[in-house]
Parts: sequence; structure tokens; C-alpha cells
Amino acid sequence: MAALPPALSDTIVALSTPPGAGAIALVRLSGAAAISLVAEVFTGKRLLDQPSHTLHFGTIREEDRIIDEVVVSLFRAPNSYTREDVVEISCHGSDYIVQQLLLLFTRRGARLAEAGEFTKRAFLNGAFDLAQAEAVADLIVADSQLSHQVAMQQMRGGFSRELKDLRARLVQFAALLELELDFGEEDVEFADRTGLVRLLQEVQALVQRLLRSFELGNVIKNGVTTVIAGRPNAGKSTLLNSLLNEERAIVSAVAGTTRDLIEDEVSLDGIRFRFVDTAGLRDTTDIVESIGVERTLKRVKQAALVIYLFDLTETSPSQLEAEIEALQLSPATPILAIGNKLDVASEEEQAAFRTRPSTVLIAASRGDGLDELRQLLLARVRGEGLDRTGSSTIVTNLRHARSLEAATLALDAVLSGLTSGTGTELLAADLRHALASLGEITGEISSDDLLTSIFTQFCIGK
Amino acid sequence: MAALPPALSDTIVALSTPPGAGAIALVRLSGAAAISLVAEVFTGKRLLDQPSHTLHFGTIREEDRIIDEVVVSLFRAPNSYTREDVVEISCHGSDYIVQQLLLLFTRRGARLAEAGEFTKRAFLNGAFDLAQAEAVADLIVADSQLSHQVAMQQMRGGFSRELKDLRARLVQFAALLELELDFGEEDVEFADRTGLVRLLQEVQALVQRLLRSFELGNVIKNGVTTVIAGRPNAGKSTLLNSLLNEERAIVSAVAGTTRDLIEDEVSLDGIRFRFVDTAGLRDTTDIVESIGVERTLKRVKQAALVIYLFDLTETSPSQLEAEIEALQLSPATPILAIGNKLDVASEEEQAAFRTRPSTVLIAASRGDGLDELRQLLLARVRGEGLDRTGSSTIVTNLRHARSLEAATLALDAVLSGLTSGTGTELLAADLRHALASLGEITGEISSDDLLTSIFTQFCIGK
Repeated sequence: MAALPPALSDTIVALSTPPGAGAIALVRLSGAAAISLVAEVFTGKRLLDQPSHTLHFGTIREEDRIIDEVVVSLFRAPNSYTREDVVEISCHGSDYIVQQLLLLFTRRGARLAEAGEFTKRAFLNGAFDLAQAEAVADLIVADSQLSHQVAMQQMRGGFSRELKDLRARLVQFAALLELELDFGEEDVEFADRTGLVRLLQEVQALVQRLLRSFELGNVIKNGVTTVIAGRPNAGKSTLLNSLLNEERAIVSAVAGTTRDLIEDEVSLDGIRFRFVDTAGLRDTTDIVESIGVERTLKRVKQAALVIYLFDLTETSPSQLEAEIEALQLSPATPILAIGNKLDVASEEEQAAFRTRPSTVLIAASRGDGLDELRQLLLARVRGEGLDRTGSSTIVTNLRHARSLEAATLALDAVLSGLTSGTGTELLAADLRHALASLGEITGEISSDDLLTSIFTQFCIGK
Repeated sequence: MAALPPALSDTIVALSTPPGAGAIALVRLSGAAAISLVAEVFTGKRLLDQPSHTLHFGTIREEDRIIDEVVVSLFRAPNSYTREDVVEISCHGSDYIVQQLLLLFTRRGARLAEAGEFTKRAFLNGAFDLAQAEAVADLIVADSQLSHQVAMQQMRGGFSRELKDLRARLVQFAALLELELDFGEEDVEFADRTGLVRLLQEVQALVQRLLRSFELGNVIKNGVTTVIAGRPNAGKSTLLNSLLNEERAIVSAVAGTTRDLIEDEVSLDGIRFRFVDTAGLRDTTDIVESIGVERTLKRVKQAALVIYLFDLTETSPSQLEAEIEALQLSPATPILAIGNKLDVASEEEQAAFRTRPSTVLIAASRGDGLDELRQLLLARVRGEGLDRTGSSTIVTNLRHARSLEAATLALDAVLSGLTSGTGTELLAADLRHALASLGEITGEISSDDLLTSIFTQFCIGK
């Protein structure tokens, strides 16, 4: 192993469980002196003689004073999270005791760990790559099945393997191009240009699939704000209640009941939808209600997705298009027109909307058509070509998306250079750029600044 | 070992670290099925074959889905906290993952642990007595050196040993009295009455020392509210600042600056003092200020300790006594008269108060005399006869104090019965009562209700 950077030579210590009173708190040390530092203040077995992956009950003392009765976990390098010697002290969950332990070890030469420093050491010591390290932070904040699943897959190296494959395929060609450069003015072509074009097109397709997955990845990580808009009494609150499976909104037959925005989240197939019920859109003289209408319009414009709910028995196709037009949505906002009151609408009223795209007919009060609506919502958010089981890699990290964007631009430059007959030197430079962008994701290429900006987003103790 | 109560036969599970996002969370299981339940869902080494006190890295899976990469700690009965098989799962500190793990294990037959149930099992399985179990809860909330030290001593059995000694000495005499009762009307006296009186007096003295220690114990646990009162411009805010070593109060030379009550805590020798600075006491026409004066008087009456600060250069001894009188304090409230502005007071002005009891002369602005004041505060709170090092047992628990009170009343009854020649039967009953009261503290005598009321005060997971 190469010599460790100087920052890795010292021993760090931090509280690794959330602060506050609880049954148990964990104080973690990592570094060359971790075991000896704890052994000096531990009364029980001689820790220095104990094997890795063992637990030891005893007391931690400062001179004669007992700080706590603890259980010590011993992990010897390289079989630990950081690949260094690691000791975890399981003490009573008291802020005072934790503070005393941190003081004790810092006085004896340990240093308080910076945010994410344990994980940073794991990365620097080769335990995993940068994309995997970032997934650790995502995993901790994951709050739905899908966000958890995507983070877990990334942490376990799924995304990294895919990138490694892409890079490996490009690296070979890059080497041939560099070889041509070495031969300078002899004008040889080791690299088969036709093969290169085919390869680049394949790699480009994969990179762009990953880039497109970011739209879904972002949604998985942050949820989808979905506004339910529509005329008064179209049944918006009833729909929200049915979707939430609980009585969140006050449902009443009086038009204009809903004035405040009502928000709640529901997880469909692992994706969080944040539904916003809105005040009915109509001209009103009621001042409170008119504030509600104004807020609705504002909210509708910020939504990731809009459900426009209309009453099948009271709306003609031309009216519907006019009402949707009046929302003044940006053309990019997906809008689902949902016809309600299917249970009382005539055959004719139903038929008028049956073939409209992105439209589902429902009876919110009875739950008819809700499954179809849920599928439509999911399809809209998932986009096309993405596996429902989530087994394809999904990019959730903005940094990764930006690197993929840079890679795709560089690959474009190589491709157009090849067709227009650009010189080898420029081709090689663009290809290097693409390789660097892909390498940034997994940290094969990284800078101190990048590492700092990534790991300071972690919590202390991780 | 006797058969376990039925409630102990199942396996419990809980989150044992504080909730919220963090680096690590611990999920703990205890009970006969703890190891097999985890082994069923753990991919790594075969946990059932692993020895106690070992750590194992692997994944927890539900069918094909990986819930998390974890480190599992194995403790085999009786070498665990609860004396049962215990497994601790160290997972990523995510609420979602913790929730998934709890769901996984409860679906497979574990039960969510009630508050304090791990510690209750430890008690029921004889790991420690009730006073020690209660100290675990005290230890977790201890927030000063002394409260930590007292809880630690109690948890490690210091208090319990002292009580056991007391009971052992009484039990022998109780047995002799019971023997006399067995002989019924033969009117024999196996128990030496003079010896019994001597013994009872000794035990009574010890019980009363413990009871007196509760006053300090309570202070150690809950802190001391100390009001600083005095005429305007006596230097109250300056004194508070000096005691707090920071600029908390707005210090100004204008009389009547302080209107709001200013509170802050400082730890002197491990005891928390909560200092309350008050609006100057004087007749005022300023309505805001007069509200301040009213509040001061109210607060002064609730204080555990009052510092009455006066200006040496402007106060005669008779004036001081009149002003203290005007506070209308209960005779039980300790009051310290502190003469300020020592640096500008004449020899004569100083001499007038030098010999007054509970009085210290200071110069708050320069810090002169503050050490002496701190010592006086501590002496007042600690009471007499209590070891500064805290090595004597200090009672901090109201339940223990009540049991000690009951014991002391019963012992009194035995003592007066002995001198007035009461029959053996009554003596024996009173002695049994005293023994029972002492036995309640350590749980040698306990009821389900008592245990419930004690352990529900614990947090979940302890």
C-alpha cells in the first residue's frame, strides 16, 4: 500500500449516534492509536491482546473516577469500516458521559473527527469509491422504499461497476489515440475510426440513459409535488382523501369549502407524491376564498405534476381545454386531466373524453379508476424505458448528473470530430475530457476541494 | 435458576439509540429467540455457531431485498445486559432502515419492547437490584459531575450495599423476636433488649443520615435556584456576570436597569446553581419597573437560597436587617447577606459587617471575595457532615426517601415500644415493617405496580 496522506496518520474520535438522551450512545475512534488510547483508560481485559471483532465489558476511568460502564467493540485494520484500527465504545446514552469521553480522548491525543471523516478515510483507504461513499449519506436520509433501494444499490457498487465498464471501453481507444500522437508526424492510424464511432455511440447512449434517469432519481430522492386543481365541487378533496386513504380534507357538498392548501404525502410504489389540494378555481367575492384562489394559481405553476380534475357531467371537451389553458402552465409541466363522477355521468358524457391522452375517468367517492390514476402518475414520473423493479441504475446525485453532462458533451465533440476529420490531438484531448468526467463520479479523479465539499455534507461521526 | 415469569419468555426488540438521522443506529433484541431471529435474515457467518462477545459484518435481507449492511454484536446468556441472549444490530442511522428492521423482526415473532423493558429484565433476572436499575435512568440524564458521580456510585451498588448491611443487622434481631413468638405464652426473651435498643439507635442514625442526604441529593439532581436580591445599584448584575464569567446581564450605572429576571446556570464543584438576577427593590413610579419589583418578591419566596446584596458604603447594620425583614422570607430559606463595593468602603463600613454570620464582603467588579462566596454557597447547600468527595452515599430518589421515612417511623415505634415494654408481637410487626421499607428500596420486596411505575419512566430501548 502506498504511504498514507499525513491527515490519515492521526486518530479521530466522534459520537456516532444521534445526540440526546437515549439508552445507548456510541463513541467511535479510528486510527493507529485507537486501540491503545482506549486500552489506557479501560479496566477489564487487556485490549491490546484481544483479537479483532470482539466485544469487551468494562469501565472507562479517568484516574480514579469512573466515567462509565461500557462495552468496547474492537476492529483491527484492515477489517473495519475505515480500514484502520477502529474502537467503538457503547456507553450509556447521556450527553454528559459522551462529552466526558470525548474530552478524555482528545486530551490524550485523539482529534475530534470532522463531518464525514470516517467515511472519507474509508474512501481514501480504498474501502469503496466516491459514488459509494456518497450513497452512504443518501442511505441515511432515504425515507421510502425506492430511495432506500437506489441508495443501497449505489452503496454496494452497482452504479460504480456500470461506470467502470464504460470507462474501460473508452480507455483502450484513448490509449491507441495517444499512441498515434507518440508517432507524431508519421500520420499512422492505430485506432480503427469506424470501430471508435460505433463504440462512442454505444457509450453515449448509456451515458444519456443514465442522465435521463436523473429526472426519476431526483424524484425518488425528493418526492413529486402534485397539485390537484379544478373547478369548485369537482371532487378534489374527495380525491385527495381517497389517495391518502384517510380523512385529511374537510369534505363537504358546499362549493368553496377548501381554502387552505392541504398537503400530504403518500408513497406509491416507493415514490413519494406530495399532494396539494387547492381552493376551487372560480371568481369569488369572498375575500378569504379569493386569497385561496391566488395561492392555487401560484402553487400550480411550481408543481412537478398537475392533476386537473373536472366534473364529467358539467364539462364539455372545449371547456376543459379552455380551463387548462387558463392555468397558464409552462409547456413542460405534465398535466393529467381526470374526469370525475364517472358513476353518475351518461355514456355520452364519458365517451367525449375516453380517447383524450393523459386522461383517466374516475369516481373518486367510490374509488373507481384510482388504480388506473396511480399507474398514470407513476408512468409520468418514471419516464420511459426504466425498469419498474428499479434494477437499472438510477442517478440521484446532482454532482453525478453534472459529470455525466460534461461527459456527454465531450463525447459529442469526439464524435463530430471523427466525422469532420479533426486531428488526432484534438480527438485525444476530448476523449481524455470524457474519461475525466466519468472518473470524477467514482473519485478515480478527485481534488481536495471536491472531497471536502462532499464529506462536509455528512454528519459528524459518519 | 427458578422458572422465569411468563413475560420473560418472549423476545423483545427496540431501537436503543436516540431517534433521528445519524451515522449509526443500534437495534437491540433480547430473549431466547434473539440469535435465531437475526440469524434467519442475516447473510454472513452462521450466527448460531458464533461464540458470545463477537462481531459479525454482513447484510440483513428480507427475501431478496437488502435492508442494510450491518455489524451484529452477539452476547450469549447469561453474559449480557439482560442475562438473556442479546443481539445488537449496528445499522446506518436512518429512520427508514430502523423502521424496516423493527417491522422485520416483529413480523417474525419478536415484540416491540416497552419503555425500560431491557433493564426490567436485567433486574428480574438478578443482574442488579432496583436501586441500581433506577440509577441507570439517573445516569442517562445526569448533566453535572456530581450528579453523574452519585448515579454511578448507586448503579455500581454503593447504596445497595449500605442498605443490605442495615437490613442484615436488623434481620438477626427480627428472627429472634419471631422465635419468641413461636414459643407463644412461655414468656421467654431470646432477644437481648438492651442490645436491640443499641442496635436500633445505630441503624436509626444511619437511616436518618441517608434521609438528610436527600436534601443534597435533590439539589444535585435538580440544581439550586438562587435569587440575587437587593436595592437598585447594589451591583447585582455585576455579581451575576462575575459568577457566570460572562456578560449575561446588561450592566449599567443607571439604577433600575434590570427589569426582567435573568437566569443562568453555573456548575460549582459539580452542583448546578441557577442564578436569578432581579429588578432592584425600591418604590418606583415606572410601571414596567414596578412589575419587575413584584416579580422579584414572588421569585424570592420560591428560592432555595437567597443572596441579599447590599452596598457597604450606603447601608447600616440596622438598615440591612430591616431590608431582609421586608423580604418576608420563610424562616427556612437560607439567606446570605453579601456586602458589595469592598474596594471603596471605609474600614469602619467594612468592620460593621465583618462578624455577621452568613455574610461575605466582596467587590463584585474586581472579583474580590467571590471564592469565599462560592464556598459559602456550597457549604449552605451541602449541609454538614457530608463528605466533599461525595464518597458517602447520597440519596437522590424521592421513592427511596419515602421508604427511608417509613423505615424511620417504624424504627421509632420499635424503639418506643421497647422502652414502654410493648409486647413482642407488636415489636416484631413494627420491625418487619421497617425491614419491608428498607427492602422496597432495593426491590427485595416489590410489586408489579411498583415495577411498572419505575420502568415506564425509562426510555424505550433501555
